[in-house]
Amino acid sequence: MTTPKFDDITTLGVIGAGTIGASWAAYFLARGYQVIVWDPAAGWANRLDDMIATAWPQLEELGVVVAGAAPRPVRAASPEEVVAGATVIQESALENMAVKRALYAQMDAVMTPDHVILSSTSGLIMSEMQAGLSHAARFVVGHPFNPPHLIPLVEVVGGADTDPALIDWALGFYDHIGKHAIRINKEVPGHLANRLQAALWREALLALKDGLASVADIDAAIAKGPGLRLALFGPHMIFALAGGKGGMAHFLDHLVPGIHAWWRTMDEIDPEITPDLARALIDGVADEAGARTIDDLEAERDQRLLALLKTLRDTPSAR
Amino acid sequence: MTTPKFDDITTLGVIGAGTIGASWAAYFLARGYQVIVWDPAAGWANRLDDMIATAWPQLEELGVVVAGAAPRPVRAASPEEVVAGATVIQESALENMAVKRALYAQMDAVMTPDHVILSSTSGLIMSEMQAGLSHAARFVVGHPFNPPHLIPLVEVVGGADTDPALIDWALGFYDHIGKHAIRINKEVPGHLANRLQAALWREALLALKDGLASVADIDAAIAKGPGLRLALFGPHMIFALAGGKGGMAHFLDHLVPGIHAWWRTMDEIDPEITPDLARALIDGVADEAGARTIDDLEAERDQRLLALLKTLRDTPSAR
Repeated sequence: MTTPKFDDITTLGVIGAGTIGASWAAYFLARGYQVIVWDPAAGWANRLDDMIATAWPQLEELGVVVAGAAPRPVRAASPEEVVAGATVIQESALENMAVKRALYAQMDAVMTPDHVILSSTSGLIMSEMQAGLSHAARFVVGHPFNPPHLIPLVEVVGGADTDPALIDWALGFYDHIGKHAIRINKEVPGHLANRLQAALWREALLALKDGLASVADIDAAIAKGPGLRLALFGPHMIFALAGGKGGMAHFLDHLVPGIHAWWRTMDEIDPEITPDLARALIDGVADEAGARTIDDLEAERDQRLLALLKTLRDTPSAR
Repeated sequence: MTTPKFDDITTLGVIGAGTIGASWAAYFLARGYQVIVWDPAAGWANRLDDMIATAWPQLEELGVVVAGAAPRPVRAASPEEVVAGATVIQESALENMAVKRALYAQMDAVMTPDHVILSSTSGLIMSEMQAGLSHAARFVVGHPFNPPHLIPLVEVVGGADTDPALIDWALGFYDHIGKHAIRINKEVPGHLANRLQAALWREALLALKDGLASVADIDAAIAKGPGLRLALFGPHMIFALAGGKGGMAHFLDHLVPGIHAWWRTMDEIDPEITPDLARALIDGVADEAGARTIDDLEAERDQRLLALLKTLRDTPSAR
């Protein structure tokens, strides 16, 4: 296997320019790459330009834009043209197995053994997507978190036919461009971060179902409390620090028995969302939103997220 | 029932001056109250002064300290003296039912019908703590999140004998002093926020057990991704915003089927922490910490948390 040296890469390909792909394109451009993009939808190029125009000042504010970078992608007329123009390609096509398989076959027909295809898939399994391709070894999942141009996390996982060395390469590549890549060792539905989120939401949903608190109060139970620490450390480190000077060992000895007791009462695996519960969720979120429209909430989220990312950059972890 | 008018309160009592009680004392002082404190441990007053000295500059940096406030608590010689000196008392005694019951009996003997006892208990049930007291109706849980002088969240829940009007009063009181109080409608072990945290950690632990990723990578899956949003919004609102312009209704129709599929594979209720898993946790956290000692990590957490709280204050939610 040969893989491009990170410093030799000047152009990146982007296939699929929806919300995720366009955000990737903006980020790659900000990092100084030429970016060649293709999408099958009508009118995609104008939407891409709009998205990049929105993302660019955010990227500038975060200090992500390198000298000489320009918000101008190159438009391709086909996936083959992207494959011809770039060795490393981030694929963010529709989350549909048939669509991905058809696209991969098209790409596979014109790929070289040096190409690297990084898939943004959140819900599909690489082993199924890559099966039967001549260049199956060159496909690996690089799943970002929305929006990719702002959120550092990228989950890297290979399929059954992925070259193990390519997984290492992908981890290194994302770190090289300023992302925080993590290695997922197995293919499971939802990878890791979304499963963790789903576990949290399951308990939040059960709290509503059980009448423990309102939607707004359940949300505040995270955002005004433990959520503040979850922007700094993950759940293992937070509980290690809850163990004081004895760390995780102390936590396991002294605090975990209480947690086991809670877990035993948290025993509903797949809660049914009845019409009544759905109504309570929808009404509860509306009540929490108050006078804010969805546009207001999105603007608030993006503005506060940007401020938070700047703060974390200016108050860095010692690691 | 009579309850003190918020604006008439000039003195607050603090019983128990450990980590939680001392942090409460610092916060109450910063808000301009006289604070009368008692703790049963030897040497408590000096430790309290040290804790307040550490917290005070943080509270000043956050702009929480009101004009005329001074970091000087009044020391009491007994719980009875606190009850004599303050009508509203935050109790943060040892998390032990026998200890709390004995203390409550002592207080009960000298309380008036106007007194309000707010308990910081994280793990005990108020109905059991208050049972049989003459002034049982005047006891309510006001559970803070550590450290109380920095984290806004306070969970309010009454016991079987608590006056329902006192629950409303406690919610109003905490909001009045600048905290974010939420109403918990039922007594369950761990209240709400800690149960939500436990649900998240359960899945994080299972990811380690199943070999899905390393401790450091599991932690990054939160802190470098969804954790950044959890400092801004709770899980319900985050998923409502994931529904785009259609909000929670769209989310329920289009994205929840996938989440149900994940949930069905997240079916371990009470994972056993075997010696091997405990070792993997301890080693994994040490690896994640790298060269950082626990003191370093605590300092990093507190410094970054303070910066984050300032950012959220300066970039407020429209609600």
